[in-house]
Amino acid sequence: MQGCAYIDEQFVAPEDAKISIFDWGFLHSDATYDVAHVWQGRFFRLDDHLDRFGASCRALRLDPGVSRQRMREVMHECVRRAGLTDAYVELLCTRGQPAPGSRDPRTCTNRFMAFAIPFVWIADPARQRRGIDLVVGTPQRIPASSVDPRVKNYHWLDFVTGLFEAYERGAETVVLTDGAGAVTEGPGFNVFAVFGARTVVTPERGVLEGISRRTVIELVQAAGLEMQVRRLGVEELRRADEVFLSSTGGGVIPIATLDGVAVGGRERGRFGPVSERLQAAYWALHDDPRHTEPVRMTAA
Amino acid sequence: MQGCAYIDEQFVAPEDAKISIFDWGFLHSDATYDVAHVWQGRFFRLDDHLDRFGASCRALRLDPGVSRQRMREVMHECVRRAGLTDAYVELLCTRGQPAPGSRDPRTCTNRFMAFAIPFVWIADPARQRRGIDLVVGTPQRIPASSVDPRVKNYHWLDFVTGLFEAYERGAETVVLTDGAGAVTEGPGFNVFAVFGARTVVTPERGVLEGISRRTVIELVQAAGLEMQVRRLGVEELRRADEVFLSSTGGGVIPIATLDGVAVGGRERGRFGPVSERLQAAYWALHDDPRHTEPVRMTAA
Repeated sequence: MQGCAYIDEQFVAPEDAKISIFDWGFLHSDATYDVAHVWQGRFFRLDDHLDRFGASCRALRLDPGVSRQRMREVMHECVRRAGLTDAYVELLCTRGQPAPGSRDPRTCTNRFMAFAIPFVWIADPARQRRGIDLVVGTPQRIPASSVDPRVKNYHWLDFVTGLFEAYERGAETVVLTDGAGAVTEGPGFNVFAVFGARTVVTPERGVLEGISRRTVIELVQAAGLEMQVRRLGVEELRRADEVFLSSTGGGVIPIATLDGVAVGGRERGRFGPVSERLQAAYWALHDDPRHTEPVRMTAA
Repeated sequence: MQGCAYIDEQFVAPEDAKISIFDWGFLHSDATYDVAHVWQGRFFRLDDHLDRFGASCRALRLDPGVSRQRMREVMHECVRRAGLTDAYVELLCTRGQPAPGSRDPRTCTNRFMAFAIPFVWIADPARQRRGIDLVVGTPQRIPASSVDPRVKNYHWLDFVTGLFEAYERGAETVVLTDGAGAVTEGPGFNVFAVFGARTVVTPERGVLEGISRRTVIELVQAAGLEMQVRRLGVEELRRADEVFLSSTGGGVIPIATLDGVAVGGRERGRFGPVSERLQAAYWALHDDPRHTEPVRMTAA
């Protein structure tokens, strides 16, 4: 696999990027992470990802032990060494390993790591043209009262169970509810619904406050459309004229069918006008120096 | 660290037991596990742990790719190689790594691993004599509608958050509720309450169906006491005459205080009669050949 990882203060090939099975980051999924992307040689909204990663670490009382400046350097260097033009760049902090015989997380030394690999799409453009099929899954998204979804985390068994359900139902991805009829999020993405020509809705609670979600919200507002961040009911989602996902793994991704029903009664492969407009606007931002920075081509 | 791990079909020292950071077992906590223990050279209820591990793998559509017979051999061999008399022996199965560029768990080859390390107490006997302090934590235990707690899993951020809360409140461990006033479980243990001289209650739902929990239930019944497996309210727990935990990490562990209040009004360091009786009965079972098997002293 092409890529580069940073672990134990060393840059290594992906196949050498390993952690101890005794790290609580694995044994208790006691870790946080963030994922930025590089498109055509430029990081997108890297500062926003670094801000959120810092906030996630603080929320979990994890200390990556590395300055923000060093994190930025490591991310650039992983991409440079991997020789990637389009990349998926992840930062991680794990709890580490407690003292022998202890179950006390305060005895752990937290561990920082990072990696860059080729850009991983939620669904690549060819797949999008064929039309993405989404289902509303049976599992309830892990509630915020258990694990704060704004702190990016690896607790994905609800999503994985939902993915297998989606495959069985002939779809390719899944959105989960809050167990009380409201839409939350899917594995690696936020969800948006469009009503008519100018109203865009995305769930307010029980979701990761995605950087791509924030980008879409800003684009909707800049386009003079009406952005509503509020409860979005599943039945309401079914009546939407357009549905799309937002993700670092592909930006704005239109949905063709929801539970087997064509979204907005549209033919497969035809996207709604608001989704198309936002998708174009999303990628256009990738040339904008306010939101991007070029990958440094000199060694860190 | 003393111990032995089995990974990639090799027995290795604990410091060499590492997994790829790209394994979904880490990146999505998409894994299951089980923990048996060895006490004075004998495995306790190993078949029950193997049964549950098999059921957990099936529930998550994980295929460890190893026969039950081989798992048993690997567990024995890990303990033998580690030279441990009292051990904590864990079996794991992770999703593995998807095909490059894919987010589809069906493209993963699942991975089996195991390790034996010195017995890890929830609280060792000396600590128990000083009296264990438990608090009811603020996070809600991840509900069964999101992740089935009967499938042993590493989704522990609710517990970890609760542990930090316990430390801040001068206690050492935590029990979580279901968010609706009912007791569930704590990090690595089930909870029991005793009322009067003969009624023992443990939560029915939202909990791992622990092997130690099952052992206690059987011991309560064998002792002619009344065992109730049902909803246990937090306020009811506060009125209990005795509270104890059950865990592979220590069997029956009496609790001294709950949220800073002496359980049953008892002096610190004095345990209730039912807890003491069950604790003695629990350890007495460890000589019983119906529940135990000696660690094999010849190489697998």
